[in-house]
Amino acid sequence: MIAIGERINGKWNDVKKAINSKDAGIIHALARAQTECGASFLDINVGTATADKVSAMRWLVEEVEKAVDTPIAIDSQNLEVVRAGLAASRKNKKMINSTSGDPEKLASWLPLAAEHDASIIALTMDKEGIAQTVDRRIEIAATIVTSAMEQGVEMDHLFIDPVMFPLSASQEQPSILLQAISQIKLICDPAPHIVVGLSNVSNGCTERPLLNRTFLVMAIAAGLDSAIVDVEDEELMNAAIAAEVMLNKQLYSASFLRAGRIR
Amino acid sequence: MIAIGERINGKWNDVKKAINSKDAGIIHALARAQTECGASFLDINVGTATADKVSAMRWLVEEVEKAVDTPIAIDSQNLEVVRAGLAASRKNKKMINSTSGDPEKLASWLPLAAEHDASIIALTMDKEGIAQTVDRRIEIAATIVTSAMEQGVEMDHLFIDPVMFPLSASQEQPSILLQAISQIKLICDPAPHIVVGLSNVSNGCTERPLLNRTFLVMAIAAGLDSAIVDVEDEELMNAAIAAEVMLNKQLYSASFLRAGRIR
Repeated sequence: MIAIGERINGKWNDVKKAINSKDAGIIHALARAQTECGASFLDINVGTATADKVSAMRWLVEEVEKAVDTPIAIDSQNLEVVRAGLAASRKNKKMINSTSGDPEKLASWLPLAAEHDASIIALTMDKEGIAQTVDRRIEIAATIVTSAMEQGVEMDHLFIDPVMFPLSASQEQPSILLQAISQIKLICDPAPHIVVGLSNVSNGCTERPLLNRTFLVMAIAAGLDSAIVDVEDEELMNAAIAAEVMLNKQLYSASFLRAGRIR
Repeated sequence: MIAIGERINGKWNDVKKAINSKDAGIIHALARAQTECGASFLDINVGTATADKVSAMRWLVEEVEKAVDTPIAIDSQNLEVVRAGLAASRKNKKMINSTSGDPEKLASWLPLAAEHDASIIALTMDKEGIAQTVDRRIEIAATIVTSAMEQGVEMDHLFIDPVMFPLSASQEQPSILLQAISQIKLICDPAPHIVVGLSNVSNGCTERPLLNRTFLVMAIAAGLDSAIVDVEDEELMNAAIAAEVMLNKQLYSASFLRAGRIR
């Protein structure tokens, strides 16, 4: 699984404080810890830490890249913040998180991804709102795929996020999402990656880690190959690795849990 | 999930000793512990404890039914032992574990199930051996379903076991089994139950509990609704309940783990 570590986000107090006090040590530690846990990308989101999001993104990218070689995922809905993050990065491999399936937005964000040879996450939502049915998710995913092909973004760089709703809001949504995942994989060959922001499934629930890892295993069986997660949740990462071993996507060996964390 | 507790089996030393010394306390304790953990049935297998399997089965059935009201699954390949277990049982609900898809065997075992209004497990194997491909599993499952209909065994009483191979023997088998599960569910409507002897998936592997519960979650997503398991493995039972909550087969509530164990 392509695990995108969620922890460097200004919504958490330690990161917010680090941004405001320019305390690089906290950021370095989070980057190293997530890398050791097997993160494939490190998400970087300024959150609401400061009004000057452009400077904050630039500083975070620089500090993360001082600490580790793990590629970054520049997480913002603001194109100027994303541009600042891309410009600050000195690494070849990176990700943009995220655009939507709105054709106007795709027309500006996809060329940016192509220009920087970056991967990009695109959510199945547009001006009409967030897709809730299988059909609407497929429809928007098809728009995204077509647009990516036109704009020169290869399928290996395209991550479609069919948008997770909390179980507590609708107990029908997890099954619908599983169906959508398996069908999005069939839109084209090679297929785009499928990613979800996992923890949303258990928002407002008890037993969140159990619910998160249970859904993750089901989603991997349906074709999911990436997720934005708490990579420091050892049980979650173990479940993802075991799921991929079951599907013969990773080799079984006596030390498969260790092997599954090596990037 | 219809959880069939695997512990009352003469292959384990404590049960073997209990059978040979007629120590009912051990059997009562195992029956109660598995019932408290949420077992829907208690498997009873004499194993190699004694040559007099008929008497041993009779004694085990009587002792289990003294301790708990949980239905029993009479586990033997020997029709006389199964008959003895059925005759000894005073409960209405019970299960026979197991016949195969061999037409000759079905012709004697299915009428016995019908006569006793018992559920019956049938494995996808016949005189040619154990089915290894999806197609062979479907072919034998169809033979079993047809035979059950002819012999008056209702689908709600039929449990098809598509036979689990260890991951360590073939890393391709778990995916094949998942496909077989989802296709067997489509043979008829209403569909038969699908059951597996879960722990076989991790035979000879490290991290057995993790592998067991990971496969179980995937299999439930594919349509499995029953498994022969160690019901005292709390993490395993939690994973099964969480999987059914995700699929909207059990209601989510803050106390869903407790609710999922009540039969």
